[in-house]
Amino acid sequence: MGGYKNRILRVDLTTRKFEEQTLDNSLIHDYIGGRGFGIKLLYDDLKPGIDPMGPDNELIFLAGPLSNTTAQSFSRWKVFFKSPLTGGYFKSSGGAHWGSELKAAGLDAIVIRGISENPVYLWASEGHYELRDASYLTGLDCDDTTELIREELRDPLIRVACIGPAGENKVRYAGIFSDRHTAGRGGGGAVMGAKNLKAIAVRGRLPMEYSDAAGFAEASKAWMEAIRTDRGYPHFSEHGTQGTAGLTNSLGMYPTKNFREGILKGYEALDGAEFKKVRVRKTACHNCMIHCPSIVHISSGRWAGNWSEGPEYETIWGFSGPIGVADLGLTVAADRLCDRLGIDTMSCAVSIGFAYELYEKGIITKSDTGGLELTYGNGDAALKLVEMIAARQGFGDFLAEGVRIMSKKLGRGTEKFAMHVKGLEFPAYDPRGAKAHGLSLMTLPIGADHNSGYSFQEIFGVRYKGQKIDRFAVDGKGELTKWNQDFTATQETGILCNFAGGYMRGSHQMLGKLLATATGVKDFEDEAYLWKVGERIFNLEQMFNVREGFSRKDDVFPDRITKETLPAGPTAGKVFEADILLADYYKQRNWDSNGIPTPEKLQELGLGFTISK
Amino acid sequence: MGGYKNRILRVDLTTRKFEEQTLDNSLIHDYIGGRGFGIKLLYDDLKPGIDPMGPDNELIFLAGPLSNTTAQSFSRWKVFFKSPLTGGYFKSSGGAHWGSELKAAGLDAIVIRGISENPVYLWASEGHYELRDASYLTGLDCDDTTELIREELRDPLIRVACIGPAGENKVRYAGIFSDRHTAGRGGGGAVMGAKNLKAIAVRGRLPMEYSDAAGFAEASKAWMEAIRTDRGYPHFSEHGTQGTAGLTNSLGMYPTKNFREGILKGYEALDGAEFKKVRVRKTACHNCMIHCPSIVHISSGRWAGNWSEGPEYETIWGFSGPIGVADLGLTVAADRLCDRLGIDTMSCAVSIGFAYELYEKGIITKSDTGGLELTYGNGDAALKLVEMIAARQGFGDFLAEGVRIMSKKLGRGTEKFAMHVKGLEFPAYDPRGAKAHGLSLMTLPIGADHNSGYSFQEIFGVRYKGQKIDRFAVDGKGELTKWNQDFTATQETGILCNFAGGYMRGSHQMLGKLLATATGVKDFEDEAYLWKVGERIFNLEQMFNVREGFSRKDDVFPDRITKETLPAGPTAGKVFEADILLADYYKQRNWDSNGIPTPEKLQELGLGFTISK
Repeated sequence: MGGYKNRILRVDLTTRKFEEQTLDNSLIHDYIGGRGFGIKLLYDDLKPGIDPMGPDNELIFLAGPLSNTTAQSFSRWKVFFKSPLTGGYFKSSGGAHWGSELKAAGLDAIVIRGISENPVYLWASEGHYELRDASYLTGLDCDDTTELIREELRDPLIRVACIGPAGENKVRYAGIFSDRHTAGRGGGGAVMGAKNLKAIAVRGRLPMEYSDAAGFAEASKAWMEAIRTDRGYPHFSEHGTQGTAGLTNSLGMYPTKNFREGILKGYEALDGAEFKKVRVRKTACHNCMIHCPSIVHISSGRWAGNWSEGPEYETIWGFSGPIGVADLGLTVAADRLCDRLGIDTMSCAVSIGFAYELYEKGIITKSDTGGLELTYGNGDAALKLVEMIAARQGFGDFLAEGVRIMSKKLGRGTEKFAMHVKGLEFPAYDPRGAKAHGLSLMTLPIGADHNSGYSFQEIFGVRYKGQKIDRFAVDGKGELTKWNQDFTATQETGILCNFAGGYMRGSHQMLGKLLATATGVKDFEDEAYLWKVGERIFNLEQMFNVREGFSRKDDVFPDRITKETLPAGPTAGKVFEADILLADYYKQRNWDSNGIPTPEKLQELGLGFTISK
Repeated sequence: MGGYKNRILRVDLTTRKFEEQTLDNSLIHDYIGGRGFGIKLLYDDLKPGIDPMGPDNELIFLAGPLSNTTAQSFSRWKVFFKSPLTGGYFKSSGGAHWGSELKAAGLDAIVIRGISENPVYLWASEGHYELRDASYLTGLDCDDTTELIREELRDPLIRVACIGPAGENKVRYAGIFSDRHTAGRGGGGAVMGAKNLKAIAVRGRLPMEYSDAAGFAEASKAWMEAIRTDRGYPHFSEHGTQGTAGLTNSLGMYPTKNFREGILKGYEALDGAEFKKVRVRKTACHNCMIHCPSIVHISSGRWAGNWSEGPEYETIWGFSGPIGVADLGLTVAADRLCDRLGIDTMSCAVSIGFAYELYEKGIITKSDTGGLELTYGNGDAALKLVEMIAARQGFGDFLAEGVRIMSKKLGRGTEKFAMHVKGLEFPAYDPRGAKAHGLSLMTLPIGADHNSGYSFQEIFGVRYKGQKIDRFAVDGKGELTKWNQDFTATQETGILCNFAGGYMRGSHQMLGKLLATATGVKDFEDEAYLWKVGERIFNLEQMFNVREGFSRKDDVFPDRITKETLPAGPTAGKVFEADILLADYYKQRNWDSNGIPTPEKLQELGLGFTISK
């Protein structure tokens, strides 16, 4: 395997014991790394039925095999755990510099289990591992936590992944933050909080080792050229995800007032051109030429003095569509507040948007909200709710559970417009306007995530096998969804950033060259093999959930998407044809009609070990 | 002069021009550095009558000749300007690392004048000087400003001195902050704000040069030994200024309810032992073995999750005595809030305390305060006021002017309990309980400052020329005050931290050795000469104010101190005998009965140039 090693640190917070482990070569061959290792380790380590907030849950922090190399856009880190929001398998991804620093510190992964008696943080650097007292960080926001750890360890170059008050308070959609980037989704922050783990600080200067350094350099250069010459690159590099609101509104699929409308009045105020006006500068994750994020600053008006790194499209939407207001400054203030308090903006925003509809319907009143008037257009109330959620204070304690539990507690038919799949709140795409995109949201083991099978063919008009795709059509969407999901699964072994995935131009060829020259595994140059690994990963994720009791009953949308229609715009009058789409999808995957992978499929993928006897 | 140089950078913000200057050797001989240079440059540069908020005012940032050397406790930096609070000469001091970094960047001083058209910050590093756009920092607190500048310049080791929103909004007692330490007093932050200067960032790695390196090393070691073996060192190193509230309450001179009482009910909750319980760790300024500051963190109760570096004694008092509440957590929250918003806690607290008394007396009501109930014990209202002051919002706009202007606007006899001298709000010592300490507050050119002539003989019982000093006595207090003031003036040429000044044991011998071996100026070994320089500095400061129209009429206390008495405790029944004490003081200084230095005294001190023809 040349210079490629895979080093894992296992930490038991209950016993305060550390164990170093080097992964078997066969595991590297079969799962490559990144998302492959994440699901395999989690599947092997976790018994079904464990409490996500209990000591037996794990947090598996991973950098990919191409992290901290010269290859562009591979610096994302991932966290794997059983989600307190979904009760199933979860993967969440963060950016900035923590992943590459983890590699430079000498580790590919850190596996956390147990529960610490007192608040601690983990400090890992080139073979030195230490659990340090974090009681003095309790209640601190993500910025202050990072700063004080750097001061305590007297090294401002330390990278910190941490939770804010929301994670400590086990808000079910609390995220894990590093330098204002976040592994936001699924409640990893709540799991950290439940483990009494405030942060993981890493720092190192170990060089990368390549199996074939010259070959890797060549592959890395070719990949850089591919990015540079891609037609989509200049626009995305210029605007990042801040250019998306204009597009999705023009498609009539910008979820507004809790998915009751598809176009937000005044959405033009949230366009990429508007964000460009308040931009301070572009920023970037470690070794990424795309530099899609930016720092923005509001210099006048109601929100003067507010700034943020971001907001990304999902956050821009989260604090506009769900509460019926198009105010750029509000999205900036909300983004910064969530970054500091440690909350996933998406689940937070959908929970708030749900509350606004409940309020409009009279299902909740001022006496429930602590006096807040949750009327559409009232952005101040949404900001106040964010603070209350992070602190689990008053009405915020209810919202901190996410819409699935909220609707279960409320009853009265509210589950019909509680916008989640498997407990994970929806992203900013109305599935009625993009059927493969919707089908992916419906079927992903982690729930309604937009990034694990993004249908760029439907949203951006990219051709699939030479064909233009009709976003409203039903035919062929099972195949397309499988393609998008498996393609992403392979890329996330890298770990390639999802935003850069498109520049691979629908092929695993470049990725395979990079992986093979880095690790020395020749099979990685075989595109068909890489496709197989992607499918293997996806099916193993599904089997994790099957083991937990998941089946077709969990691949379900709220009635709003399958029975109601949008009143206006290009997506008006459409519903999501769930039964037809799902049947096609299961067939494409060779899963049975209950959404369970068949034994044949599992054997074919080398997943025979998941078949219960 | 050996290796000693004195390099000044002059920056005109209006013309955006830089000018480098090396000071004359004669200036070094006559004024040594630090406070000596500050007043001399300011006196020479400023015409009388200029607007403190206008382009002709200067901000002179200085490190001392012993900054960034191996000598302990010389890392403080100073800022000199005409104060928007007093209309006179001002000097303000900050700690942490900015001063030594300025030296390492190759500068002893930066002199700022003019007004920038747009918000800028200054970046200075080893001969590179640059005004950079700061519009994106507008409205940001001191922490975020520091972080974003470090990110922009891609160097986390940069040291930043900056203002927060309070400075931008020209709050008259806005401070200048660096790494949570502050040159807080006198409104330097407001002057920076008026100049559209958000920050000064410095970084460098230039080594120090000594005229006599071996001699300096020896002197530096002796000084370290003197600190280490001082009887007061262990206690002060252990508690810092957090050990003071117990003492001043026991002396009955802890100003309570706007100086109407001398003991705060429940003050034991604010004792050093209580702060020790919430301490995270000690911190320190650059190269200071005393490490008197600390980081504290509140882990339970009403203020759980609040933390701060500090609070120092003055802040502990400021958010207890003036508002009649003894709540340790409140002082921590207030300290952090003021650090972030960029406000001098002392003037802020006295202004708030003034408002509480006005409210009690019915001179202001809820309709003035925007609904806040300023009743003694209401700490939440005080925190809210801090935010309103920084933003100059509503009632906060009135408080942002300081008590002198507040009382002038109100009339109705309120000047009798507007607690200031020359516009500078009082510190946490009741002058009725320490007459020399009070006399210094009354006579200092900068107003009611406790650190420029601290009567440790009265407060801590240190002997003066072998004698114990009766703190209530009037006799001999003119001489003692002059001694304390001139002694401090010499030490601040160093710039020696005032908290370390006591370890010099009443002598300039050790300081002289350090100064002489560093600079090569032999006269600095002559104690009598150093005393003369101190007196020269003090008299030149006085002449700056005389030129502005100051005289005896400005050396005045509010009636509360001279006519009213405290109702209980060891200082009960005492008044401050202003006339007798002041007459004695003027005589000791050889100033005339109007508080003007005589021509003979000025000639003797080499200050003939200040005598108007």
